[in-house]
Amino acid sequence: MTSPLRAAHAPRSIAVIGASENPDKIGGRPLYYLGKYGFQGKVYGINPKRTETQGFPTFPSLDALPEVPEAAIVVVPGTSAVTAVEQCAKAGVKVCVVMASGFSETSSEEGRLGEQRMREVARAAGMRVIGPNSQGLANFGTGAVLSFSSMFIEIPPMDGPVGIVSQSGAMSVVPYYMLRKRGIGVRYAHATGNDCDVTVAELAAEMATDPELRVLLMYLESVPNPAPLAEAARIARERGLPIVALKSGRTSAGQQAAKSHTGALANEDRVVDAFLERHGIWRANDLRELVHATELYLKGWKPSGRRLVAISNSGAVCVMSADAATRANMPIAPLAADTKAELASILPSFATSTNPIDITAALLTDSGLFGAILPVVARDPAADAFLIGIPVAGAAYDVEAFARDTAAFAEETGKPTVAAITQDEVAAPFKARGVPVFQTEAEAVSALAQFVAHHELMRDAKPTLPVRPAVAGAQRMLNEAESLARLHAAGVPVMRHQLCRTADEAAEAFRALGGKVVVKGCSRDVAHKSELGLVALGLENEAAVREAFGRMRATLERQKLAFDGVLVAAMAKGRRELMIGAHVDPVFGPVVVIGDGGKYVEAMPDSTLLLPPFQEADVARALDRLRIAPLLRGVRGEAPLDVEAFCRAATAVGRLMAAPDCAIVSLDVNPVLVGSAGEGCRALDGVVFEKA
Amino acid sequence: MTSPLRAAHAPRSIAVIGASENPDKIGGRPLYYLGKYGFQGKVYGINPKRTETQGFPTFPSLDALPEVPEAAIVVVPGTSAVTAVEQCAKAGVKVCVVMASGFSETSSEEGRLGEQRMREVARAAGMRVIGPNSQGLANFGTGAVLSFSSMFIEIPPMDGPVGIVSQSGAMSVVPYYMLRKRGIGVRYAHATGNDCDVTVAELAAEMATDPELRVLLMYLESVPNPAPLAEAARIARERGLPIVALKSGRTSAGQQAAKSHTGALANEDRVVDAFLERHGIWRANDLRELVHATELYLKGWKPSGRRLVAISNSGAVCVMSADAATRANMPIAPLAADTKAELASILPSFATSTNPIDITAALLTDSGLFGAILPVVARDPAADAFLIGIPVAGAAYDVEAFARDTAAFAEETGKPTVAAITQDEVAAPFKARGVPVFQTEAEAVSALAQFVAHHELMRDAKPTLPVRPAVAGAQRMLNEAESLARLHAAGVPVMRHQLCRTADEAAEAFRALGGKVVVKGCSRDVAHKSELGLVALGLENEAAVREAFGRMRATLERQKLAFDGVLVAAMAKGRRELMIGAHVDPVFGPVVVIGDGGKYVEAMPDSTLLLPPFQEADVARALDRLRIAPLLRGVRGEAPLDVEAFCRAATAVGRLMAAPDCAIVSLDVNPVLVGSAGEGCRALDGVVFEKA
Repeated sequence: MTSPLRAAHAPRSIAVIGASENPDKIGGRPLYYLGKYGFQGKVYGINPKRTETQGFPTFPSLDALPEVPEAAIVVVPGTSAVTAVEQCAKAGVKVCVVMASGFSETSSEEGRLGEQRMREVARAAGMRVIGPNSQGLANFGTGAVLSFSSMFIEIPPMDGPVGIVSQSGAMSVVPYYMLRKRGIGVRYAHATGNDCDVTVAELAAEMATDPELRVLLMYLESVPNPAPLAEAARIARERGLPIVALKSGRTSAGQQAAKSHTGALANEDRVVDAFLERHGIWRANDLRELVHATELYLKGWKPSGRRLVAISNSGAVCVMSADAATRANMPIAPLAADTKAELASILPSFATSTNPIDITAALLTDSGLFGAILPVVARDPAADAFLIGIPVAGAAYDVEAFARDTAAFAEETGKPTVAAITQDEVAAPFKARGVPVFQTEAEAVSALAQFVAHHELMRDAKPTLPVRPAVAGAQRMLNEAESLARLHAAGVPVMRHQLCRTADEAAEAFRALGGKVVVKGCSRDVAHKSELGLVALGLENEAAVREAFGRMRATLERQKLAFDGVLVAAMAKGRRELMIGAHVDPVFGPVVVIGDGGKYVEAMPDSTLLLPPFQEADVARALDRLRIAPLLRGVRGEAPLDVEAFCRAATAVGRLMAAPDCAIVSLDVNPVLVGSAGEGCRALDGVVFEKA
Repeated sequence: MTSPLRAAHAPRSIAVIGASENPDKIGGRPLYYLGKYGFQGKVYGINPKRTETQGFPTFPSLDALPEVPEAAIVVVPGTSAVTAVEQCAKAGVKVCVVMASGFSETSSEEGRLGEQRMREVARAAGMRVIGPNSQGLANFGTGAVLSFSSMFIEIPPMDGPVGIVSQSGAMSVVPYYMLRKRGIGVRYAHATGNDCDVTVAELAAEMATDPELRVLLMYLESVPNPAPLAEAARIARERGLPIVALKSGRTSAGQQAAKSHTGALANEDRVVDAFLERHGIWRANDLRELVHATELYLKGWKPSGRRLVAISNSGAVCVMSADAATRANMPIAPLAADTKAELASILPSFATSTNPIDITAALLTDSGLFGAILPVVARDPAADAFLIGIPVAGAAYDVEAFARDTAAFAEETGKPTVAAITQDEVAAPFKARGVPVFQTEAEAVSALAQFVAHHELMRDAKPTLPVRPAVAGAQRMLNEAESLARLHAAGVPVMRHQLCRTADEAAEAFRALGGKVVVKGCSRDVAHKSELGLVALGLENEAAVREAFGRMRATLERQKLAFDGVLVAAMAKGRRELMIGAHVDPVFGPVVVIGDGGKYVEAMPDSTLLLPPFQEADVARALDRLRIAPLLRGVRGEAPLDVEAFCRAATAVGRLMAAPDCAIVSLDVNPVLVGSAGEGCRALDGVVFEKA
């Protein structure tokens, strides 16, 4: 049995409801494409006024067809589209691609209800709906082009190992255009539109099962539900299929525009970053980044590391390549002494036999230099990837030989090899031999760095899924004592403290703790204690403690705020204040934030995100990204901080937040005072919000 | 009288020493170009074996010429090249372009001496030398192409308002190629080579005097002397000529490669940044950035601000444009209510009449929408610049009309307007009408942002030149008391303190200061006092002060370190530790570094550079770039810090360092404790190094 999503990708029979003879109309173009691109299945037109459309048999209604088509394209507008979807559901069609627009994208109530009706009808019948407002799906593997995009006329399709799936019509065919212009074949160019039922992520998951696909590109304006995206990533990862995603709406201006465009829900951008990273999906920053490394993915290289060797006939390109490599976190590989000696014996005396290797203009007089040095470099174990830079060449050079030598080298080493070539005429023979070519060294290095880093990302992926639903409804703040108790129970070390309801209890606590104490007013109504004078530090005697108790109780009572007691706590010792925060993202579920602590966490944030479940090692890696990372490791002869203890505490918060029955909406533990290695860490303050 | 540099740019007569009949040889190609590109002056070959070369009269030696040529190209190799330069100098040639290589770029002693000889001979005669190892100079305005680059065969020249000057041969012609491919005319493509005499900056200064030039592009691997670069920038700025410079060797790997390439001295990269910025030169990060905004500069637009309006037929492009604009610090302009209402009356209901403006696919059916909305948007005063995004169009669209409407709009508003168009065929009519077109919105926004920001940079430029020479030779460290005295004399507030030679003096100082004190051992031999136990904080009584005195003297004497006394200082009050450092850059002269202070300045740097002379307002602007900027302004209800006092102190250090007779090599004032506004700031520690 073909599943509905399978039928969306590769239907065996298709009906076009609203078929048109005019290939420039929405109802005509899919028929034109189905005829032109060799679709082998059955195609039926539905149009009461015709018996044949563009050569395809045409019927007055769905009922009149000789069979139930697997897929139906709905072109008819407005309420007719809803009716058509109802008829499809009744007839047993597996999937409807609704191109008709005027639904929820218009913010009209009628449109919204129509769209809702389509979804309900489909779900009841086990049918799926793509769209409405969909530009359609295109499969150039089978010729099932259920799309009205004009782009497939502008630049002819060629089947290949790339799949594109996009919420936006333009962003399904613009990457198609850019890839086709580079001579790369594209199998799928799907645009889902309003996503009333089938989402872009579901189509991606289905697409990822195609064994011939080698790279999958996505464009998204929002992630309403992470599960299908996680599933697509899982399927892809298991067979080594890289997914590159351009999720726009990174900035608030972009989110505002996305809301106008597709009514997209704004995701918190760094949560999206963390989610995609955890699932091994590379996040492209812009359209260029979405496509620029495609050729590299198609090569099937297995990168062994990041160390780059750059070779050029221009010293300037050597310098710029080294700059670009450093920026891209690809160190210039130090060549072995043997390699350098051998290179020096081949190259002229004024060339450079260290990496980057400057062959110099000597290449003009000795075209064999290229082919002579490449095998030498290939043997050096320090080299993980190669950049060949030829900014200037032409008629006087044996460009064919360079291209041949480079391609042979890439083939033999099996290591990632790209070229930076400015001139189209010089680039052509390299491209013809399958060498990925970029116009500048910075672009070449950037694509190479993405390819290598994405490989690491996929290797290290740790899929995560929200294990508890988002929290809705009213919430309440716990007072500090309750908050600390909750954290302590979860495994987070907290300062030694006692909640005291009377001055005598406070004095007793002071004696029990020994030494200087902190006294803090405790109230479920007060989030910011300092502002109300509810924090007294370094009290040294009982009288001071009793005075603080009385004053704080009076303050709270005067302001009609709950008096839950005072906390008397030992003055804690430690070296750096860090913080642990957590909240429940409405889409992605529990999120833990760790970072530098203290009172300037908003003004000078230095924090990073973790998505549960995570382990202590994950926290340690996350800490390495912080600005304060050197401090944690110990600088200027200082002992390292007790990172292990902090990692345990953060992991405990992750476990707490991820528990299915957890009622916590958010929490903020700041500061967590961390001592030197072995001295542990302690939460000195904390506030927990939970479902009321 | 034509100056030698004028003669280099636009010689009236040229001799080629080592003329060849073969246009593919170095001695033949300049003759080929001089014939082909319409040079109107006199051209002579020098070759004892010939009387005519490629149609030009040829003589056995320079003496035999009927006149003294203004410029001579030296192609003959090795010692012959040096001899040729000598003969040119003797004959009264104004400038030699030495293409011969094998000099200092080879690190051979003979080469180095030959190059030195050329320079000396030329200087003695008032002649100038370009090169050696120069690819040559090309002037397509006069046809004086004294270059052997093959690139002018690969893509034919067209005179235009762009000048390129580069140390590297490749980087003089690669930008030429990229611009010519975009249809932009290029007048100059100069490559200077080893810069033994004339530097790339001197040629840039000469180039900048060409009144028809509209943009000047430079490639540099080092700045050995800032004065000519400052002069080029001054000339350019005075006539509104933008200079874009790619200074490679940003990273240490890049600097290493540059050293191998041209023996380039490594400049401290952030000093280069500060210098270029102060002089209004835009620093490109890579080759693409060097050329990408060229068309915009050629438009002659005077940008009024940074607020962007984006218009597209794709919602996705609207979203991505908003993201890109935010990243590039170009806010999406909020349109006036009138504008929005008028747009809403023109656009279909499902389009977006806020900025970014999403025309939607309605453009397909109504090609007039574009022309209808542009004038409405043009009238909105909030719009400073425009991005037109057309990711998808083609045969079914009236692309000619869009291009016509866009060009007319840009013409009428006089505001920067660029297009992001993926398809070559759609881009063509826009390009034909002079609209700058980029393939993606991110690239378009990036070029636009550079153009606008560079305009601001030129407007705000504050030229600066080293007012004192770099310091060479031995240096000595002043002890803390001397250092603080030097700072105090220069106008930097320092903590209240007293240098005490005896325990009695120390006790007396304690009584005089009143309250808790700090005691610090003072020695011209000790840079890091804490490590030796030479800092005692918060001493509260005379006995403790005497004890500290005795202990510190004993420590220093035991270690055979100079005992210069102890400093007794009042415990200072303040809120944040900042720092002021200064040193003398070997190239750029005095440099002042300001930033966050304390003990982690190396581990977690948060600092910025100032080049003297500068004013307090410059320091304030520099502080705004720091991570701690919000703290300085006051956050979480805190009072702002006394930024004015700190600015005065930093300006005092700038004045001190810039004084022509200043003997200070470097200084480090850390911490400078800054109080709340009105409370001032004080140096709590300082160390000064000066010429021994």
